[in-house]
Amino acid sequence: MTSGTIYGVGLGPGDPDLMSVRADRLLRNARHVAYFRKAGHVGQARAIAGALLPAEATEFPMEYPVTTEIPLSDPRYNQLLSEFYASCTGHLRSLSLKGEDVVVLCEGDPFFYGSFMHLHSRLHGKVPISVVPAVTGMSGAWTATGTPITWGDDVLTVLMGTLPEDALVRHMRDTDALVVMKIGRNFDKVCRALARSGLADRAWLVERAAMPDQTITPLSDVRNQVAPYFSIILVHGQGRRP
Amino acid sequence: MTSGTIYGVGLGPGDPDLMSVRADRLLRNARHVAYFRKAGHVGQARAIAGALLPAEATEFPMEYPVTTEIPLSDPRYNQLLSEFYASCTGHLRSLSLKGEDVVVLCEGDPFFYGSFMHLHSRLHGKVPISVVPAVTGMSGAWTATGTPITWGDDVLTVLMGTLPEDALVRHMRDTDALVVMKIGRNFDKVCRALARSGLADRAWLVERAAMPDQTITPLSDVRNQVAPYFSIILVHGQGRRP
Ligand SMILES: C[S@@+](CC[C@H](N)C(=O)[O-])C[C@H]1O[C@@H](n2cnc3c(N)ncnc32)[C@H](O)[C@@H]1O
Ligand SMILES: C[S@@+](CC[C@H](N)C(=O)[O-])C[C@H]1O[C@@H](n2cnc3c(N)ncnc32)[C@H](O)[C@@H]1O
Repeated sequence: MTSGTIYGVGLGPGDPDLMSVRADRLLRNARHVAYFRKAGHVGQARAIAGALLPAEATEFPMEYPVTTEIPLSDPRYNQLLSEFYASCTGHLRSLSLKGEDVVVLCEGDPFFYGSFMHLHSRLHGKVPISVVPAVTGMSGAWTATGTPITWGDDVLTVLMGTLPEDALVRHMRDTDALVVMKIGRNFDKVCRALARSGLADRAWLVERAAMPDQTITPLSDVRNQVAPYFSIILVHGQGRRP
Repeated sequence: MTSGTIYGVGLGPGDPDLMSVRADRLLRNARHVAYFRKAGHVGQARAIAGALLPAEATEFPMEYPVTTEIPLSDPRYNQLLSEFYASCTGHLRSLSLKGEDVVVLCEGDPFFYGSFMHLHSRLHGKVPISVVPAVTGMSGAWTATGTPITWGDDVLTVLMGTLPEDALVRHMRDTDALVVMKIGRNFDKVCRALARSGLADRAWLVERAAMPDQTITPLSDVRNQVAPYFSIILVHGQGRRP
């Protein structure tokens, strides 16, 4: 029997209309569908897929172990996650060996800071895998602002809000255009770094880009201390434009 | 009469199957279609759209003025391009004022180093415009390599091959993951910068990502002195992965 393929399918930033034609077709014909989510939540990827999935598809929600008690630096954190990914991988692999294709739903582009990468690195070379690229959350965000992100030979830097403040500042000071992701509880630190690098006045906060409750706010107007998980800070480049 | 909308429609990296559902629908229903191209060429955006466009759609190819004789630094270069964009804009605006929608075909994502931005900046606020984000060329490229581009809190830097060598080196030395675009005749300079920053051994050249004649080559195996217009150099990040 030939093994089934594990498809890592990028769904784009949120609006199902921004999914690729290939993703749309894979979803509509799926027999097995897997996706990550927090326990007790629908999961953003599952929410984007919405009613496109056939009613008879078998769903495999992969629920993150609760790690809120354990600091990121604790070796048990990595161990817990690693066991979790191994168990997800085991299930997907067994389906593939039975000849079943599996669609793994991914937020944004699977190979750009995506959770699917942790399954991919474990399954790679063992079962057939196919990755469908997608519109990233950041493309959704800069499109929402109505202003291009980069011109001419602008340098674009993508930073994670989880970096130390000084690293953020160093990179912010040496770029033309900027994207900051994974903001959430790092919001305050990211704002301080933007202020120190002189970018705060040009920065925008985009929450839930391309989702129904999208918001776009100049950073200087934001009063909150935290930002939602799905939020991105942008500074647009100002390069050469004839 | 209500004005027509100018749609800047991203088509993704090349494979029409990677176009969004929205882009696919806009193309299939288009009455007026505009796209940039070099004189004497089909144009990559037009090629991606292929047979999706209705036979009765009116096409408006926007042919770049020949600038090969004029150095980029010459003010006449900017002036020539500026006049060209103004004349394209004039035509699109007149269609909009007649109530016609126009689909402008864009390679990759329109707001990411795209030519459409030069029309957008001139039309913005004057006629209704709507931008459809898309899979970028770089997403197509890293997906083609079969390896994720960024993990954990990796920093991603996007550079244009048109930058001076020393600027390339400075940014290359201070990033985890790297994308270099606009390579073409800058290939040699980009390779020297990669060597100086110690990244040459980990770099990949992806030519024509997601197009029929796609190639993926470790940079150390490349023997050419130039790369085609549609090529991207990548260095994958190696961040935290539980
Ligand atoms: C684990 S990363 C996944 C990125 C995803 N693979 C992509 O291509 O965008 C999660 C981060 O992506 C960003 N993000 C993804 N989609 C978003 C959206 N629609 N709106 C705002 N932020 C988004 C947020 O910064 C979030 O913290
Ligand atoms: C003017 S920029 C346009 C970028 C486009 N808007 C995007 O989102 O990718 C042109 C550059 O994009 C890169 N590029 C775009 N599509 C590509 C593809 N399919 N394969 C390789 N390179 C591509 C090349 O580096 C090229 O020089």
